[in-house]
Amino acid sequence: MTILIDETHDATALSWVESANLETSDFPLQNLPFGIFASDTDSSPRVGVRIGAFVLDMRSVLAAGLIVVDPVVARALQSDTLNALMSTGQQSSGNLRRELFNLLHMRTGMSSQHATTVCLIPASEVTMLLPANVGDFTDFFTSIHHAQRSGQLARPDSPLHPNFKNIPIAYHGRSSSVTVSGVPCSRPYGQTGPDSGYRLTEKLDFELEVGFFVGTGTKAAERVALDSADTHIFGFCLVNDWSARDIQRWEAAPLGPFLAKSFMTSVSPWVVTSEALAPFRLPANARGDDAPTLAAELTSAKHTASAAINISLQVTLQTAQMRAQGISGESVARPNFKDQYWSAAQMLTHHSSNGCRLRPGDLLSSGTVSGPDRADSGCLLERTVDGREPVTLPTREQRGYLEDGDIVSMSGRCMRRGFRTIGFGECQARVVSASSSSQA
Amino acid sequence: MTILIDETHDATALSWVESANLETSDFPLQNLPFGIFASDTDSSPRVGVRIGAFVLDMRSVLAAGLIVVDPVVARALQSDTLNALMSTGQQSSGNLRRELFNLLHMRTGMSSQHATTVCLIPASEVTMLLPANVGDFTDFFTSIHHAQRSGQLARPDSPLHPNFKNIPIAYHGRSSSVTVSGVPCSRPYGQTGPDSGYRLTEKLDFELEVGFFVGTGTKAAERVALDSADTHIFGFCLVNDWSARDIQRWEAAPLGPFLAKSFMTSVSPWVVTSEALAPFRLPANARGDDAPTLAAELTSAKHTASAAINISLQVTLQTAQMRAQGISGESVARPNFKDQYWSAAQMLTHHSSNGCRLRPGDLLSSGTVSGPDRADSGCLLERTVDGREPVTLPTREQRGYLEDGDIVSMSGRCMRRGFRTIGFGECQARVVSASSSSQA
Repeated sequence: MTILIDETHDATALSWVESANLETSDFPLQNLPFGIFASDTDSSPRVGVRIGAFVLDMRSVLAAGLIVVDPVVARALQSDTLNALMSTGQQSSGNLRRELFNLLHMRTGMSSQHATTVCLIPASEVTMLLPANVGDFTDFFTSIHHAQRSGQLARPDSPLHPNFKNIPIAYHGRSSSVTVSGVPCSRPYGQTGPDSGYRLTEKLDFELEVGFFVGTGTKAAERVALDSADTHIFGFCLVNDWSARDIQRWEAAPLGPFLAKSFMTSVSPWVVTSEALAPFRLPANARGDDAPTLAAELTSAKHTASAAINISLQVTLQTAQMRAQGISGESVARPNFKDQYWSAAQMLTHHSSNGCRLRPGDLLSSGTVSGPDRADSGCLLERTVDGREPVTLPTREQRGYLEDGDIVSMSGRCMRRGFRTIGFGECQARVVSASSSSQA
Repeated sequence: MTILIDETHDATALSWVESANLETSDFPLQNLPFGIFASDTDSSPRVGVRIGAFVLDMRSVLAAGLIVVDPVVARALQSDTLNALMSTGQQSSGNLRRELFNLLHMRTGMSSQHATTVCLIPASEVTMLLPANVGDFTDFFTSIHHAQRSGQLARPDSPLHPNFKNIPIAYHGRSSSVTVSGVPCSRPYGQTGPDSGYRLTEKLDFELEVGFFVGTGTKAAERVALDSADTHIFGFCLVNDWSARDIQRWEAAPLGPFLAKSFMTSVSPWVVTSEALAPFRLPANARGDDAPTLAAELTSAKHTASAAINISLQVTLQTAQMRAQGISGESVARPNFKDQYWSAAQMLTHHSSNGCRLRPGDLLSSGTVSGPDRADSGCLLERTVDGREPVTLPTREQRGYLEDGDIVSMSGRCMRRGFRTIGFGECQARVVSASSSSQA
């Protein structure tokens, strides 16, 4: 199934929810991302859809009979996670999105608008929760700019590993570490060398990533063909794969990152569907003259035509001092997801190539998204050359790595002439000192 | 809480379930491991306890009011996984074990025996299922003999990584790959080099490991002290961490094993509790004269006194030809878990040192358990020196790595003079060719 650009992407379509029509909103009628929320008046986790400054409570929408969905989707919308909805497949979630588009469209009759208004809760009055129960979290390494710059620190002569252009490299992450935007990041302890003991990391870093959730899963030993891979992707989010570089350097040989990553991984709460992203697809990047021949399983004409996704990303950093002085977050990176060497479809196809079972709600993430310029590095390791060339902030504070009190915010927007800009909202967390009472 | 040796470990205690008293049984009254099963007459997954040749159906035991347990445990025993029981903590599961010991003890009154008999199902009439919903699976690398011999293949001059004696090294595994003993292992496809394309692995290997399930979990940013670590361990099982060595070699730099491992991980169905293993504890191994000073967090007098567990392990291999000729599996390794460099408590303490959240039912595994002699290697990579020195079987067949039709069986028994031997049952699977219809 190919996702087509259709009426739901029409830039002229407006919503009767007026805040959705503001040009600055990440959540116009053309977006309609899904999430899980609880409200001040009802603490039970439930499915919501973001529209402008409001969250549409899907349980209420269903109870009021405002949309027509098939029974499987209706049941999925009663869940406290998105896993069931993700598992229904793109046909179902696409139909649901069209129903919501119609319901929230300006042309909808006044009686429907009135009935729907009572299902809207101001976004400021809800608590967003983790969108899915993440069975497994896989973190890739698919930015060639990140691979080159971070590789240069360890191996100046051959920064890129020999397999980089043959396979989308990845490691298994820790699903218990995945948490929603807003939860503070507690600075972790760890060993950083032979005589270090366990001490607080001095090289706490963010990693700006784009993640995607598996929709329809696979059976064990089932391999997904590249041209089918996108049908297994429900939607996308922003990911901050917090990293402790000093712990990582000491532990990572021979089995890769472990505790340097598993203390926390933040995700943005709104899952932007594959359907909403359809207009922002771009052809695959040129692989470079020196690139090896791709395995047949990782290339196709259809894939090449629309492999990349144009998402302008940004990381901002705000220190405690900046907050005290009323200075907003300073942009420290503006890469674009379209510059990744490997596509989401290639990641998923490679992931399933050994028959590994993918389950609805599994999270795959791109790895650090870095632009061609060092100024657009998706992590401080690259940007500050492992702390040696710190970033200077408006307060004249310097940051080689993160300090307690720093707030890291990530955002992403999809822009294309002739189309309404859509966004991902925010993936944000504040660094806090480890509680002294944390030893159990 | 320290687990004591008490009446439930008395070697003279016999059960009225006579098959439990056979010396060859892994499941005497002193063991009482937990698992999840379905029976021919009732396909609903439920909690069982193994005794001799029978499975005690805990749902029936509870319905008949044959044991006294607190309400939390009663609810946990109604579940279709062991996660809830694991989360109740060692005090609760210890009490439950004592209740079961009394119920199945020879001295129990005839009326209780009769009422309990109807709750017993022959083990041959049940299907064992995965004991827990494994939220996260972590695989360690804690055998120094394995680290040295496998390291020698890649780095003859310095086989041991510099961090090996400082931290229990590990990587995050794939929880969706964890499956119960008996499920066939489908030979995976994968890339093995720059021009290989995706092809069937030619270096399919087993890894003999001992796993343990987290009981009481931890909160994010909570760190477990070494002397408390054992209280977070519900029980142990055998693990076969199937590996594709050719895929592994190509993919593993820089982020560690990924698809070389995530096609399948087999676990034995019966979880032998920490309580049952109490008599088989041994002092920690000497760390070697050249060992660095241990971080304070990884050592204590209490830990040193009983860090290791004496489990005699065995791997047998039976080819299709051996089966056709009625030849039983040939032993290819007999290592002992007591020879591991790091203990389960050290693994769990290190795992939580960065505040990583551990959840009830999470699986931690030792990594390949290899003995000091190459003949007791827990994988073929070591044993056959990457296939160059194949094992010769009774049929004169040779195996550098596994062939389709091979059955790999793992077993483990705990023996100590003055105590009843207890065992783990079997972790077994047959290698099958990948289905040609597996491309989706």
